[in-house]
Amino acid sequence: MATSASLAQAPTAAAPDAAELRGVAQALFAPVPTAVAEVRGEAITAEQVELGKWLFFDPRLSRSHVISCNTCHNVATGGADNVPTSIGHGWQKGPRNSPTVLNAVFNIAQFWDGRAADLKEQAKGPVQASVEMNNTPDRVEATLRSMPAYVAAFGRAFPRERDPVNFENMARALEAFETTLTTPDSRFDRFLAGADSLDAEELRGLSLFVEKGCIACHAGVNLGGQAYYPFGVVERPGADVLPPGDKGRFAVTQTASDEYVFRAAPLRNVALTAPYFHSGQVWDLRQAVAIMGSAQLGHELNAAEVESITRFLHTLTGNQPRVANPVLPASTAATPRPE
Amino acid sequence: MATSASLAQAPTAAAPDAAELRGVAQALFAPVPTAVAEVRGEAITAEQVELGKWLFFDPRLSRSHVISCNTCHNVATGGADNVPTSIGHGWQKGPRNSPTVLNAVFNIAQFWDGRAADLKEQAKGPVQASVEMNNTPDRVEATLRSMPAYVAAFGRAFPRERDPVNFENMARALEAFETTLTTPDSRFDRFLAGADSLDAEELRGLSLFVEKGCIACHAGVNLGGQAYYPFGVVERPGADVLPPGDKGRFAVTQTASDEYVFRAAPLRNVALTAPYFHSGQVWDLRQAVAIMGSAQLGHELNAAEVESITRFLHTLTGNQPRVANPVLPASTAATPRPE
Repeated sequence: MATSASLAQAPTAAAPDAAELRGVAQALFAPVPTAVAEVRGEAITAEQVELGKWLFFDPRLSRSHVISCNTCHNVATGGADNVPTSIGHGWQKGPRNSPTVLNAVFNIAQFWDGRAADLKEQAKGPVQASVEMNNTPDRVEATLRSMPAYVAAFGRAFPRERDPVNFENMARALEAFETTLTTPDSRFDRFLAGADSLDAEELRGLSLFVEKGCIACHAGVNLGGQAYYPFGVVERPGADVLPPGDKGRFAVTQTASDEYVFRAAPLRNVALTAPYFHSGQVWDLRQAVAIMGSAQLGHELNAAEVESITRFLHTLTGNQPRVANPVLPASTAATPRPE
Repeated sequence: MATSASLAQAPTAAAPDAAELRGVAQALFAPVPTAVAEVRGEAITAEQVELGKWLFFDPRLSRSHVISCNTCHNVATGGADNVPTSIGHGWQKGPRNSPTVLNAVFNIAQFWDGRAADLKEQAKGPVQASVEMNNTPDRVEATLRSMPAYVAAFGRAFPRERDPVNFENMARALEAFETTLTTPDSRFDRFLAGADSLDAEELRGLSLFVEKGCIACHAGVNLGGQAYYPFGVVERPGADVLPPGDKGRFAVTQTASDEYVFRAAPLRNVALTAPYFHSGQVWDLRQAVAIMGSAQLGHELNAAEVESITRFLHTLTGNQPRVANPVLPASTAATPRPE
């Protein structure tokens, strides 16, 4: 490819020392755990995970009976839908790019503006949003109660509750299932664990990622997803990438300093989740890296630097979850009809 | 339920002799095979099935990148979408109810009007239909060729071909995967094999199904799907159930005697695939049975008869296929963007 060729001719920095870089990386990042045992101090049970899987794949959570959680957070395609903004009820387009569900449990809060504290709260949003699944809690509960197999599954998942089939427990079960959607064992995580799993260019990319300051926002398990920052700290991108009508976290906090503030994107599996940014208008990961350099860091990264960082980002792709499709309970005469 | 109560009070016929009925049934029907070894005399390979699974779940076969085969033929919900008519590109509604993909390989031809000779031909239809996936063969081929993992998978699936990534082979692979979507071991099939797996009422339903003449159209492995019949042989149903604008097989053959002629619906897993008929306007299987009685047989079936036949139809639900979601190749810079 042209970029590789020009890179080979460019005067390159000496390859970073892998051992030294590993020490730095271990202080900044952490590997993706294979399992999450609890949320909010409560153990996650196998019965909750199984129920959550049913719900995640059930299009009857939507008013149309056509859209499931998996429609926009597709486990087959990096946990997202890979379109600029999701298509919902009536073919309406949502306002922002669908974030990946993979490793989402490790984010400090959910949505681009962090308006949901956790996956449980997040799960309630798209089900009700008129441009997404366009449903109501009452209608969802009536749907779930209409099927004896769902009633039994809620009973198994929440055995100490008298009336377990409710919207809150739908959200808890979805969260439980989503905690299983982690992607351990990326090449980067193997590097963190001591393996020689990155090549010289990827190491150079990691080194640049540290030195140029990307780590200011993109650190921790998810290399991001931990705090909020203005998009365009140094230089505001064009209106295509940063549409003036979407003021980000300002809508949550109503604080002037939160205008155009978003949660730093988590970068795990970022090579699988184009297009990029909340606006979903950038398809090329290299271009996204370059925009971040100029907008957030005030660095005009050169082509070789962009390429190295991009190559490093590809090492963040972990083992994708293998999810068997559930066999869902059949609707009954009492199930609300699609609208 | 009210129907059961009234049934208990009704003067019921003596329970049919199970052994005798089994003999009759064995002559009319056949169990669902667990596997299909070949199509059109060619062996199906594991590599074709695996590629077909990728394709079946890949929303990038659609122009929008949002609709996959599984959207309307959902393996989690009886192999269909359980809405009156499918929702496709731009939220357009299709003209007919989506038939189940489960056991579809055993039908004589595909679609309600049999216009596709087999699943390979069928697979090409929805991908191109403007109200469904709205794509073109050229664009599909460009999409598949843009991803090295797809190119390799086509090479494995069609190893003797020089240029295996093409629309025809997409259809062949989809067909190969779909031949695995069979539902063996229903209670009815266990009865055919000699087990006492049907209760007295289900046996009565089977007996009525034979005696009343349902078997004229609904026989063989799929209890239907083998030939074409006018809808409304004896009495034409209302325009809601039989819309005058849809003349069925007439559109295929341009023969006057084919007006309102449709392929007899296959009845395997029929309890999972409401709503019923090509128009998808009947939600209650009992009502569908009653309509068939009057429209096709000229029998006004009484409530007890309808209930018995309906109970029998529930025994046609077999083991649903357990399908693991594939992990799909990531799009590349060369992948056509969603539109």
